[in-house]
Amino acid sequence: MGIKNGSQYMQQIDQSKPEVWFHGEKIMGSLSNHKAFRGLMCTQATLYDMQNELDYKDRMSYISPITGNPVGLSFLQPKNKEDVYKRRVMMSLWGERHHGMMGRSPDYMNTGLMAFQSAADLLSEDSPERANNLMSYYEYCRENDVTLSHVFVQPQASRVVQLMDDGSFDTSAARIVDKNKDGLIVNGAFLLATQGITADEIWVHPPVYTQLLEKNNPNTFVFAVPNHLPGMKWICRDSMVGGDSTYDYPLSSRFEEMDTLLIFDHVLVPWDRVFVDGNDYLSQQLFSASGFHTHTAHQVLCRYIAKSEFILGIVLQMVDTLDIGYYPQVIEKINEIIVHVETLKSLLLAAEHNAVADRWGSMLPDRNPLWTANVIFPKIYPRMLEIIQLIGASGLIMTPSEMDFNPDLNPYLDIYLKGNDRDAKDKVQLFRLAWELSSSGFGGRQQLYERFFFGDANAVNRRLYQGYDHKDQYIKRVNDFMGL
Amino acid sequence: MGIKNGSQYMQQIDQSKPEVWFHGEKIMGSLSNHKAFRGLMCTQATLYDMQNELDYKDRMSYISPITGNPVGLSFLQPKNKEDVYKRRVMMSLWGERHHGMMGRSPDYMNTGLMAFQSAADLLSEDSPERANNLMSYYEYCRENDVTLSHVFVQPQASRVVQLMDDGSFDTSAARIVDKNKDGLIVNGAFLLATQGITADEIWVHPPVYTQLLEKNNPNTFVFAVPNHLPGMKWICRDSMVGGDSTYDYPLSSRFEEMDTLLIFDHVLVPWDRVFVDGNDYLSQQLFSASGFHTHTAHQVLCRYIAKSEFILGIVLQMVDTLDIGYYPQVIEKINEIIVHVETLKSLLLAAEHNAVADRWGSMLPDRNPLWTANVIFPKIYPRMLEIIQLIGASGLIMTPSEMDFNPDLNPYLDIYLKGNDRDAKDKVQLFRLAWELSSSGFGGRQQLYERFFFGDANAVNRRLYQGYDHKDQYIKRVNDFMGL
Amino acid sequence: MGIKNGSQYMQQIDQSKPEVWFHGEKIMGSLSNHKAFRGLMCTQATLYDMQNELDYKDRMSYISPITGNPVGLSFLQPKNKEDVYKRRVMMSLWGERHHGMMGRSPDYMNTGLMAFQSAADLLSEDSPERANNLMSYYEYCRENDVTLSHVFVQPQASRVVQLMDDGSFDTSAARIVDKNKDGLIVNGAFLLATQGITADEIWVHPPVYTQLLEKNNPNTFVFAVPNHLPGMKWICRDSMVGGDSTYDYPLSSRFEEMDTLLIFDHVLVPWDRVFVDGNDYLSQQLFSASGFHTHTAHQVLCRYIAKSEFILGIVLQMVDTLDIGYYPQVIEKINEIIVHVETLKSLLLAAEHNAVADRWGSMLPDRNPLWTANVIFPKIYPRMLEIIQLIGASGLIMTPSEMDFNPDLNPYLDIYLKGNDRDAKDKVQLFRLAWELSSSGFGGRQQLYERFFFGDANAVNRRLYQGYDHKDQYIKRVNDFMGL
Amino acid sequence: MGIKNGSQYMQQIDQSKPEVWFHGEKIMGSLSNHKAFRGLMCTQATLYDMQNELDYKDRMSYISPITGNPVGLSFLQPKNKEDVYKRRVMMSLWGERHHGMMGRSPDYMNTGLMAFQSAADLLSEDSPERANNLMSYYEYCRENDVTLSHVFVQPQASRVVQLMDDGSFDTSAARIVDKNKDGLIVNGAFLLATQGITADEIWVHPPVYTQLLEKNNPNTFVFAVPNHLPGMKWICRDSMVGGDSTYDYPLSSRFEEMDTLLIFDHVLVPWDRVFVDGNDYLSQQLFSASGFHTHTAHQVLCRYIAKSEFILGIVLQMVDTLDIGYYPQVIEKINEIIVHVETLKSLLLAAEHNAVADRWGSMLPDRNPLWTANVIFPKIYPRMLEIIQLIGASGLIMTPSEMDFNPDLNPYLDIYLKGNDRDAKDKVQLFRLAWELSSSGFGGRQQLYERFFFGDANAVNRRLYQGYDHKDQYIKRVNDFMGL
Repeated sequence: MGIKNGSQYMQQIDQSKPEVWFHGEKIMGSLSNHKAFRGLMCTQATLYDMQNELDYKDRMSYISPITGNPVGLSFLQPKNKEDVYKRRVMMSLWGERHHGMMGRSPDYMNTGLMAFQSAADLLSEDSPERANNLMSYYEYCRENDVTLSHVFVQPQASRVVQLMDDGSFDTSAARIVDKNKDGLIVNGAFLLATQGITADEIWVHPPVYTQLLEKNNPNTFVFAVPNHLPGMKWICRDSMVGGDSTYDYPLSSRFEEMDTLLIFDHVLVPWDRVFVDGNDYLSQQLFSASGFHTHTAHQVLCRYIAKSEFILGIVLQMVDTLDIGYYPQVIEKINEIIVHVETLKSLLLAAEHNAVADRWGSMLPDRNPLWTANVIFPKIYPRMLEIIQLIGASGLIMTPSEMDFNPDLNPYLDIYLKGNDRDAKDKVQLFRLAWELSSSGFGGRQQLYERFFFGDANAVNRRLYQGYDHKDQYIKRVNDFMGL
Repeated sequence: MGIKNGSQYMQQIDQSKPEVWFHGEKIMGSLSNHKAFRGLMCTQATLYDMQNELDYKDRMSYISPITGNPVGLSFLQPKNKEDVYKRRVMMSLWGERHHGMMGRSPDYMNTGLMAFQSAADLLSEDSPERANNLMSYYEYCRENDVTLSHVFVQPQASRVVQLMDDGSFDTSAARIVDKNKDGLIVNGAFLLATQGITADEIWVHPPVYTQLLEKNNPNTFVFAVPNHLPGMKWICRDSMVGGDSTYDYPLSSRFEEMDTLLIFDHVLVPWDRVFVDGNDYLSQQLFSASGFHTHTAHQVLCRYIAKSEFILGIVLQMVDTLDIGYYPQVIEKINEIIVHVETLKSLLLAAEHNAVADRWGSMLPDRNPLWTANVIFPKIYPRMLEIIQLIGASGLIMTPSEMDFNPDLNPYLDIYLKGNDRDAKDKVQLFRLAWELSSSGFGGRQQLYERFFFGDANAVNRRLYQGYDHKDQYIKRVNDFMGL
Repeated sequence: MGIKNGSQYMQQIDQSKPEVWFHGEKIMGSLSNHKAFRGLMCTQATLYDMQNELDYKDRMSYISPITGNPVGLSFLQPKNKEDVYKRRVMMSLWGERHHGMMGRSPDYMNTGLMAFQSAADLLSEDSPERANNLMSYYEYCRENDVTLSHVFVQPQASRVVQLMDDGSFDTSAARIVDKNKDGLIVNGAFLLATQGITADEIWVHPPVYTQLLEKNNPNTFVFAVPNHLPGMKWICRDSMVGGDSTYDYPLSSRFEEMDTLLIFDHVLVPWDRVFVDGNDYLSQQLFSASGFHTHTAHQVLCRYIAKSEFILGIVLQMVDTLDIGYYPQVIEKINEIIVHVETLKSLLLAAEHNAVADRWGSMLPDRNPLWTANVIFPKIYPRMLEIIQLIGASGLIMTPSEMDFNPDLNPYLDIYLKGNDRDAKDKVQLFRLAWELSSSGFGGRQQLYERFFFGDANAVNRRLYQGYDHKDQYIKRVNDFMGL
Repeated sequence: MGIKNGSQYMQQIDQSKPEVWFHGEKIMGSLSNHKAFRGLMCTQATLYDMQNELDYKDRMSYISPITGNPVGLSFLQPKNKEDVYKRRVMMSLWGERHHGMMGRSPDYMNTGLMAFQSAADLLSEDSPERANNLMSYYEYCRENDVTLSHVFVQPQASRVVQLMDDGSFDTSAARIVDKNKDGLIVNGAFLLATQGITADEIWVHPPVYTQLLEKNNPNTFVFAVPNHLPGMKWICRDSMVGGDSTYDYPLSSRFEEMDTLLIFDHVLVPWDRVFVDGNDYLSQQLFSASGFHTHTAHQVLCRYIAKSEFILGIVLQMVDTLDIGYYPQVIEKINEIIVHVETLKSLLLAAEHNAVADRWGSMLPDRNPLWTANVIFPKIYPRMLEIIQLIGASGLIMTPSEMDFNPDLNPYLDIYLKGNDRDAKDKVQLFRLAWELSSSGFGGRQQLYERFFFGDANAVNRRLYQGYDHKDQYIKRVNDFMGL
């Protein structure tokens, strides 16, 4: 089949019927009719439609080596710099369509899966079958344009160890409770399955934290399954959708990606979907040796740039319409965003310019600038929102809704709410956009999301520092200077 | 009558029937039944009830010099340090009841009006009648426990000057368009009448920005009127109330103070409610010479402290329930809040300790520490919210609602969402509170509100710097050191 | 004898003849003639002279209970709030004389010793003799106005544990290597004996870091000795004195307190000077239970205030002479310092206002605001220096020296270097002062000193957080709000 | 002649005999013998020597189009990207030799002069002769490898306007006081002629601040002259050289570039050295239209990178020798520097990658990333020094000198001052380097220099914001999103 389109995406999600709980009730109808999901699903559908548009198709797909069908370009394992460049073009096209607002636009997990499969050989250590499972799963997803999400993190409670009456220890950490001829039986819970229920399948991969690597750790496994297996339950947080009006709620009406608590209550995972079973080392290596954090950081940086540029555009317009672009304090704040945009774009360029082939034959972008971006963005993103607040001030609060621009109130609003360079209705639209981004529940959830996207600050910092390639070179320069 | 109670407050608001627009529709029923207002009105009612409770009455009221009735203590003009101390006790009682979440709890404008009337003599310069108007209005409010709000700021458009066809200049700035025997006719719009429609009356006082002070400036006036005069229209922003459940929406279900755009469409303001008519100097002096920004800063600092202590309590509990209180990075963040709380409390103490009598006989708290607090708080408040996000992380996002704790889901939630020191339902309640404060639309609006409460950063900074009393002393010390 | 005067101070130091090394050479002559020490010693002498001046004597001394002589007020154990207030007046008088530039002005260790002796009873646990030693030593110092310094910290190398050939472990940590009838024999090194050689004696007190408290730990001891015992060697760092001209080097010519590496090479410490011998618990308690960090923090806060006010005076003058006090960016920077000054003064007031008696009968200032100041100052002090740089800019660099104001160059300097409100020579003097404070080696050493005065950031933060008294109160408030 | 070598450089400076004042005395002997200048001059000589070394010559010179001699590569006007790349290689070679410590390494002004001459045609508007003067001067400098410095800024006093007795206004601003057949007579003073007296010539170019551009403004001129013309007087600030020992003073013994106040007392500037005479517009254009701030920013960014990499090397070594590289707080601080290094390198790459030809045929690097670097560096540089202080702590203070490592003290220092991975003498050497960079007078002057290198924060910010090329693109993206 190859690349799918928007309506295929919608149909598949609606047919899947996972067990989803929303505010204490099980959702019975189609997700695409539900006010908490329909906006996001429509947006996601337009992304899939883009792949099929004449303008974009060449830049967004490539020919499957096994079927000859066009398949999504974010599934492409880059073999040379040209591939890296093509991938960036594709990811930027989607990124600029959703303005970086979708952390789980499909290219993210397509890229992750591509990284994992590039290192499938690793799994042969346990058994060739596992490696085959992974290769097959990758091809299945690529050929069917499967929409994939993932869960890594477990709730805090899973880290608490309790002493039981019989002297044993127990935790609520996810674990393999049984195995049979059909597969593993898994029990446990995972946090923050973002877009879990507006995707087709879920990749489940709890990180290994111990130093003493075991080969038969029941808490260690990697698998991918459809969303509706018996025993899987999805519990939603509050919806951040303000309403359907794209004037009033320009972002949440389109980009609100639901996060869910995913429960596995004795779920049977079929063997052909199991990639790691108990082997701590392999679970770790699948992350580190596959270049997962480098390949996905490439996608993420494209998204960061689209989002930052969008914010810069918003702020520049606010400054124009408020006519305050000559104040040094305002220029300084705009420049913080300009500096950030120029920095991210340059880091992307450098990552691609300095790409080198890894042992799997992937042309791997340079992780040093990419992981630099991962350290920067969680700090700058909240600051950009703060700048919107500092520049927008009361203008962000006093925003009537689309329905207020009616014959009764229009005469007043037209006079009193007009901007320097635009009429009242356009100005209010701009400021409602700025409000949603910086100050609404939708904005707050995005802020949290960006702060912790690639782990907390310690994890992201450790990744950059320990992986940094140039330490010896700079140390040597100082030693030479000192004559040592 | 003296101090009123909660049901009197509710009745009066409901009887007033101002013209209020909400999402394009005129509100026809009682405000106290409307989901956007009922929660806040209930909370405000409990504040008024407190005044009548045996436990509090002595600390919250004093005997009216003209009627012998108990009247609200925040109306008291302080004549000595004991009065200053009493005022603080009263304001802290209310502040700790609403945890600083209400920027327009009634003591704020009671205090402001007290400051204005203390300097009523100023107005005699124009005419003794104006001074009398102000004194009478103050007594009217005090004796009837009138709930007052205010508007100062006009929309950005009011600052744009347009050249007309006939060569004259025009703006949409609010102005006196006519006068007759009954009063002034006023036209214009004002921003951010916070709680304007859940108060009885509104104080209207556009600041004078020009250096060339005129005596007959049509843009200059000060008056106070009931909310329902013909021609007054109130246009609401979106409501930030998440819902009625105090478990799910602990703050917005109680403390959401609506902001409105207030239109005066040829409104007749009766002469006995006019305090300034055209005289720029008097309008300015009513702010500066009355000690308005000092007396209200005293109230505001009590509120800041209650709010900061509440946030500290939340963060301390989050840290306990996540069991992370031994990490240096966490301690450092908690300490930022502790430092802030200790600083604010010390500044309040210093302001009272160094109070001196002004020319109106008011014992005026020391403005230096008070205005210091006004410079600090708008910077620290957003940081405290950031700290909540940094500590709460994904725990702030993955919060089921009250209704999810049902027999179907309870068994899972109880296991997977419990905290270090509390069960799942209590932990989720804490994190929902932290979410609303730090990341919701309610929280975003409060963040903007606190950033700009006493003016933008430049205004608040200029006030402190220009009013700072100790400059000469410190300059002299350096000159002495240099032998100059 | 009681309070001494400046010349007595100088004589005693010069007669003491410790073994001091400076740039590879042993100092043979008098310290008071040495360019690295004479300026500081003169300044210290003026402090002692102040105690004898009619204007100050009453505020700086009290009558010794055992001799009837006037003794230094910083030796006074405060028994009531009046005593606390008197101590603050005394400490501020000295602080304002040296503008907070002297971290080891004598009141610091006088206060520390007073705190230790207040808890001398603690030491009776080991033996009454130890308690007596401490009481006697305190009285000896008070009655003779002994100038005391201290060492706590050992070099990094002392923390490295080495495995020896014979299987034992060894470190270079300071330790008791032997004991005999005359005393302990101690070997080891200590860092940063600030003013060690311009004081008479040194208090030696290595902190205990282990959790497992021993009673006979050879690395644990507390004693005080004169500076010239055989085997004591003092190794100086570079001197930061720029020169003798107080015009050119207004600070370093007066306030440069030398830091030394202090070596104990098998030094015999007489028994009557030993306060703790091997008992980890007592060594710890002498710090914590005596209120050492609270009493000294009171002194330190007086010093912080004097220093911050001095900096504020400098910056206010720079702004005046550059005529830039109307720019918002400049006002904002000045206000950072004003905010800091007002905060510190308020914290001091609060600490005294909330003082309570401890179990030794000392009226102990409230540690919460004091330790808050200790967390704040190391962050704000470097920022104040940065503000000086940002405001002074090239004016800080282009400062001719006193000798450049000669007939050849005067005609040019008078024209080209004059300021808005002062002539060239005075302006240059101000900017040289600002330079030394913010940008010179003297300034750099002070910056490091203030950053780490009371320990590194983690230690200072932990002290505040763990000792914070109001946690339960604020937690309860939130629980009440949530109905828990 | 073409590229010169180190001894030629030294000879020429020593023969020039300008009138230099140092601490009130006229310097009579050779500068290269003077302790304040000899170190820097030696370093500068090694730079010139490099040009002649076999290893470097090809990368550091090109063949003069008029003489066939090799001339300095930083004089090369880049015509294509290859030239841009060559220039960067050359500038990085010098930058990495002086580790970015020399703001006036010769490539800086070589580049500036190249930029000016590229736009010489501009000057034909006034007269072809002026354009010729500039072309000839450029060729003269290139062919003779002239060492050039510049002055732009005048003392604050020059901006004060005084009303004279006769009703006229006067200032001390530099001006043309007369003209005769030989040239202009100029009177005035300029600040911060960095390396003015260790260069051969000086470029004098007061910026035009007025909006009303005149053609005959006596305060407007551009010229270049040798340092020893009659009437030129150079007044030095204090020297920051700590001493000659490269162990004790590794930076100031090599890199201390003296700043001077340069007086023109009725100096005759010969006509052939005059490039602009009174024309405000041309003076401005010579800066803006020539790409001066872009070409030099390219050189400056090479220097920034060398300096930041050097600092990173120092910090990495400090962390190793202190064995603290596993603490999250330490990793976070190191990462701030890594992030900064990666950012600068990426910005450089982007500037070159996006270079385009300008109207003078120069291949101009992209100003957007370059000016971004100029906004960043003045903020990060002080932070890097702060990080050195925070990591080095007392280790930065307690550093004996080279002479302390003598037989008397060695036995102690070897034990007590050794590091985790190096012996005491090497560790102290590293920390003395860190001290000089972060905390000494040399370091303080460099900090000020970097803060204001390309103007104050407002100027640098305005340059980036107003010159930013992508504003319309990002604004359009938001308008498209809003359907406007």
